[in-house]
Amino acid sequence: MKLTKLIPASAVATLLPLVAFAQDAEVAVPGFDEIGPYIMTTLLFLIGGFLVMWMAAGFAMLEAGLVRSKNVTTQLLKNVVLFSIAAVMYWLIGYSLMYPGDAWIIPGFLGAVGSATMEPVGLAVADADLGYASVASDFFFQLMFCATTASIVSGTLAERIKIWPFFIFVVVLTGFFYPIEASWQWGGGFLSEMGFSDFAGSTLVHSAGGWAALAGALVLGPRIGKYKDGKVTAFPGSNLALATLGTFILWLGWFGFNGGSQLAAGTVGDITDVGRIFVNTNMAAAAGSIAALILTQIIYGKIDLTMVLNGALAGLVSITAEPLAPSLFMSLIIGGIGGIIVVFAVPFLDKLKIDDVVGAIPVHLLCGIWGTIAVPLTNADTSFGTQLVGIVSIGAFTFVVSLVLWLVLKAFGGIRVSEEAEITGLDKAELGMEAYPEFYKG
Amino acid sequence: MKLTKLIPASAVATLLPLVAFAQDAEVAVPGFDEIGPYIMTTLLFLIGGFLVMWMAAGFAMLEAGLVRSKNVTTQLLKNVVLFSIAAVMYWLIGYSLMYPGDAWIIPGFLGAVGSATMEPVGLAVADADLGYASVASDFFFQLMFCATTASIVSGTLAERIKIWPFFIFVVVLTGFFYPIEASWQWGGGFLSEMGFSDFAGSTLVHSAGGWAALAGALVLGPRIGKYKDGKVTAFPGSNLALATLGTFILWLGWFGFNGGSQLAAGTVGDITDVGRIFVNTNMAAAAGSIAALILTQIIYGKIDLTMVLNGALAGLVSITAEPLAPSLFMSLIIGGIGGIIVVFAVPFLDKLKIDDVVGAIPVHLLCGIWGTIAVPLTNADTSFGTQLVGIVSIGAFTFVVSLVLWLVLKAFGGIRVSEEAEITGLDKAELGMEAYPEFYKG
Amino acid sequence: MKLTKLIPASAVATLLPLVAFAQDAEVAVPGFDEIGPYIMTTLLFLIGGFLVMWMAAGFAMLEAGLVRSKNVTTQLLKNVVLFSIAAVMYWLIGYSLMYPGDAWIIPGFLGAVGSATMEPVGLAVADADLGYASVASDFFFQLMFCATTASIVSGTLAERIKIWPFFIFVVVLTGFFYPIEASWQWGGGFLSEMGFSDFAGSTLVHSAGGWAALAGALVLGPRIGKYKDGKVTAFPGSNLALATLGTFILWLGWFGFNGGSQLAAGTVGDITDVGRIFVNTNMAAAAGSIAALILTQIIYGKIDLTMVLNGALAGLVSITAEPLAPSLFMSLIIGGIGGIIVVFAVPFLDKLKIDDVVGAIPVHLLCGIWGTIAVPLTNADTSFGTQLVGIVSIGAFTFVVSLVLWLVLKAFGGIRVSEEAEITGLDKAELGMEAYPEFYKG
Repeated sequence: MKLTKLIPASAVATLLPLVAFAQDAEVAVPGFDEIGPYIMTTLLFLIGGFLVMWMAAGFAMLEAGLVRSKNVTTQLLKNVVLFSIAAVMYWLIGYSLMYPGDAWIIPGFLGAVGSATMEPVGLAVADADLGYASVASDFFFQLMFCATTASIVSGTLAERIKIWPFFIFVVVLTGFFYPIEASWQWGGGFLSEMGFSDFAGSTLVHSAGGWAALAGALVLGPRIGKYKDGKVTAFPGSNLALATLGTFILWLGWFGFNGGSQLAAGTVGDITDVGRIFVNTNMAAAAGSIAALILTQIIYGKIDLTMVLNGALAGLVSITAEPLAPSLFMSLIIGGIGGIIVVFAVPFLDKLKIDDVVGAIPVHLLCGIWGTIAVPLTNADTSFGTQLVGIVSIGAFTFVVSLVLWLVLKAFGGIRVSEEAEITGLDKAELGMEAYPEFYKG
Repeated sequence: MKLTKLIPASAVATLLPLVAFAQDAEVAVPGFDEIGPYIMTTLLFLIGGFLVMWMAAGFAMLEAGLVRSKNVTTQLLKNVVLFSIAAVMYWLIGYSLMYPGDAWIIPGFLGAVGSATMEPVGLAVADADLGYASVASDFFFQLMFCATTASIVSGTLAERIKIWPFFIFVVVLTGFFYPIEASWQWGGGFLSEMGFSDFAGSTLVHSAGGWAALAGALVLGPRIGKYKDGKVTAFPGSNLALATLGTFILWLGWFGFNGGSQLAAGTVGDITDVGRIFVNTNMAAAAGSIAALILTQIIYGKIDLTMVLNGALAGLVSITAEPLAPSLFMSLIIGGIGGIIVVFAVPFLDKLKIDDVVGAIPVHLLCGIWGTIAVPLTNADTSFGTQLVGIVSIGAFTFVVSLVLWLVLKAFGGIRVSEEAEITGLDKAELGMEAYPEFYKG
Repeated sequence: MKLTKLIPASAVATLLPLVAFAQDAEVAVPGFDEIGPYIMTTLLFLIGGFLVMWMAAGFAMLEAGLVRSKNVTTQLLKNVVLFSIAAVMYWLIGYSLMYPGDAWIIPGFLGAVGSATMEPVGLAVADADLGYASVASDFFFQLMFCATTASIVSGTLAERIKIWPFFIFVVVLTGFFYPIEASWQWGGGFLSEMGFSDFAGSTLVHSAGGWAALAGALVLGPRIGKYKDGKVTAFPGSNLALATLGTFILWLGWFGFNGGSQLAAGTVGDITDVGRIFVNTNMAAAAGSIAALILTQIIYGKIDLTMVLNGALAGLVSITAEPLAPSLFMSLIIGGIGGIIVVFAVPFLDKLKIDDVVGAIPVHLLCGIWGTIAVPLTNADTSFGTQLVGIVSIGAFTFVVSLVLWLVLKAFGGIRVSEEAEITGLDKAELGMEAYPEFYKG
């Protein structure tokens, strides 16, 4: 009965014609009130998904803008390819691994892969899970989060990492590391059962990516000349217009990232929540950028554009763990603190001689932690203790397995280009193709 | 009764099972036909909003492409920060000021701010305004218009304005000037009562931004060397690829700007109107660019790409006052005239020695006026007289308060960088950070 | 009866209040279940349309990045203007020509044009085609495909073609050539009656654009110095960051291109199919890029970024003929073969001394053919024979009429710039405006 077509009850007043109509209505056509939520949520996943896909371009532009000209081609290549690898690996293994049903242990995945994660063409209403959305749309949306995790790693390790070992790392990260840790929460694993809360992935995506990047940075070491004679040398980004474009792209894509994570759009409550998430997300980004603006003016006497850009991203990461519950005022506070963290963490990392080319560790790892810790401030269903358990368990797992993998890759063939190649630039040395062959006189 | 769930009336033929079902249905679940318009309009605001948000990136790229290399970082910074400031100020003050209820006088805003403009998480159907949309989505959409107004000012004043006075101007513009004049129409103020018509803001957003920019240009004066010995010196933009990208971004975002301004998407009539608006908007942009193409070929013997780009934007601004009523043919005419206006107005401004770095005054101010005047050509409910009243009252208000603010800022600390800094470039002089450190040999 | 408002049948249990309500309900207001599909499909066209519109920016950036600095302004100009021309010509002639009703012969188009393709403002439900969508939204979506066809031609002929003859070609292509051949299939013409299948335009859009480009390349000849003394000289692209950005934009826009081509989104089956299309499209792009990555590493010993970018685009073109039926595994195969085709076809074209500046012929023409041939592999309702008929008839038509037009344009005034202008660069020689005046020392 659930799916039979509604007919006009105005017929109650005029019964006769209705009886005839009712016989037509025996054909089981669903009313839109039955299928509306399914359709709207699927649409949310598709729109949210293409917005997050667009973030891949944002990372590419941000990183291409922040590295030196001689490494731009390499950075662009890494961003296109890591997204492609994620698309294959998350399908081949990751998605099954992340949503295992009742347990998060690895299922007989390789056998099940070719078959039927996606529903048949022209899915019949009777076969659809009307309480949810299309599986393909869900897969599409979730894939983009997996790819984002890999994008985060790319920037930190720029200007010195070999291309192929990086790709191998991405294969394992998107096929195994990310899906395993994400399954602990979003796959119904132990963190979700404990009451850990990470709405759109401050910890699961951003911190995880940051931990993987940190492990890589430790194994890889800093760029030549970065820390010399106790001094930190700045290597200014080659194209701040691209870096700014990348930041705007990420800001835009984040509406899909957080808004889509409502995972429903077909009820008044859900679509209203998506609206709340949009404004909170925007406010946190604005607050992060303004915080960095004011702080760099105060501390350095000059505004630092790259700090303002990273401040906006810091605000976005910070609000990602809980973009729904906060008021606009609390979103401003949470995002603003994110901006402050970045301004202090960037020079602090340099003191530790951890060379993070684009500031991904402060933005994604540290603000991811901050955002996750801040959840109980606005969401009464959570506790600091449980949040810490989630942060630590995902952090420890991702850091350790990443570290091991980087060390293994280092042992087998190495992960760092030669000193000569690094000085020449990876574009010429590794790819034989410069990004700006007519402008740059290397 | 409005919100109780519909049940299949096919049951009229088979009454017995229905009675049982009807008892379940006593739980007040709304049919999708009740909540559909609310959901669709909220979705329209969110999609429209993120498209207009994307216009902030468009302005940033357009302006970064049209200034000289030595001022690019500054221009990028201004665009990121003005958007952030708008997000805070429009929340803190602007939105309440713009929609005051029955009168447009300033309400007791500072008290009411922290509280509840946004609806509760998981809004119950019973509490939603089902004739409208989510407040958060409306706020999100309206905020983007406020930010756009500030973006317009940024380009005109490039290459010579001090950063902090500009930011202070943006604070006041987005917190007060824009919301006050916009409330006269969109907040139900006297212009709306008179029958003034400005569908998506040719006057309220674009002309207003243009007036604020003009006031600033007059107070600030032209760039050094721009008008020397009675001659106009061209300062070619440093990156036309970015300028073109910016134009395409703005063109794309304008579908949200105009389409979203239908303010409804949940009925056949409304969604069809959104479709009309999309094609009219696109046609006006195309016509503006073609008009500038042909005119510059005829007048100068060579096509001028920046004129073609500004021609497209001119078409977009021109159709913004009434993107719904015109036929495609009339949209072509309205947009084409916009393109013509720009080709003549740019050199005319130079004759007046008003230095508008990116052509924002011709595009936004003049075509905003043209578009608003043109409304009665296609919309019979409007009159030229009333349109003029709107243009003049908003123009006079915005110009005068902007002029006063610029003069005050000039008196207290100045708004123009030193001659030396201007020649060196603002990036090095004010920020110590070049946009293209490896390409540009200043 | 179809459009009368549904009323709550919970009233079956409480009849009395319902009778009163039923009388209200006599007013013919449609239930959302009647109008939902119309609204959702219209929304699909609008979202799909703006995504495909965005592809115009993608082509502009891709081409601007792959030409030399001295020709960038010209390439940008061509891309903005061709999109504008398409908007006018497809309205003036193309759309009527493409959807002629029962026959594809040219209707009395010029008379009918000004009138009523678009529906009235505030369309009444009774007048809407509820089985479909708004005409304006359909026009908007279809227009973007017409513009894409023209975009494809632009890249191949870069760096040596005169601007105005190119624009004249675009006028005819978008007003006549594309609409005529597209009508054979999408306008209900003979190919559609034969059972030819081209879901979103591998042949109708991409191959057709490729054939027009090939004809132009043959008439125009290669750039000076490209094939000298039996050797192929590489002219590296001036800005690989822009080329990568363009590729990401195209990748994003393709979700609209293929997803929107489902032409319906208001049922469970349709929206689910759109989701399938999204993931298949993404997978094919990923596979194409990975295939080119691995192949260039193997063949040349170095990864070639432009090949990887073109590989992704090749995957996208390849899946476009049938993005719905394939499994994800088959999408990977189809897209991957596209990537392989590009890696081999680019040097092969050079052997034939066909100078295709951006690789548009391998990507759009060859992979368009491949994708169309591959349809029967996954869609049982099609046959290789019929697919070949479609490929050949559209290819022959488009190639021949394009060739004739290029030859006519060559005869009347010429289509190639002078040798001097080509060496100087089109930007300085033809437009007097460089794209990067401060970086590039020509």
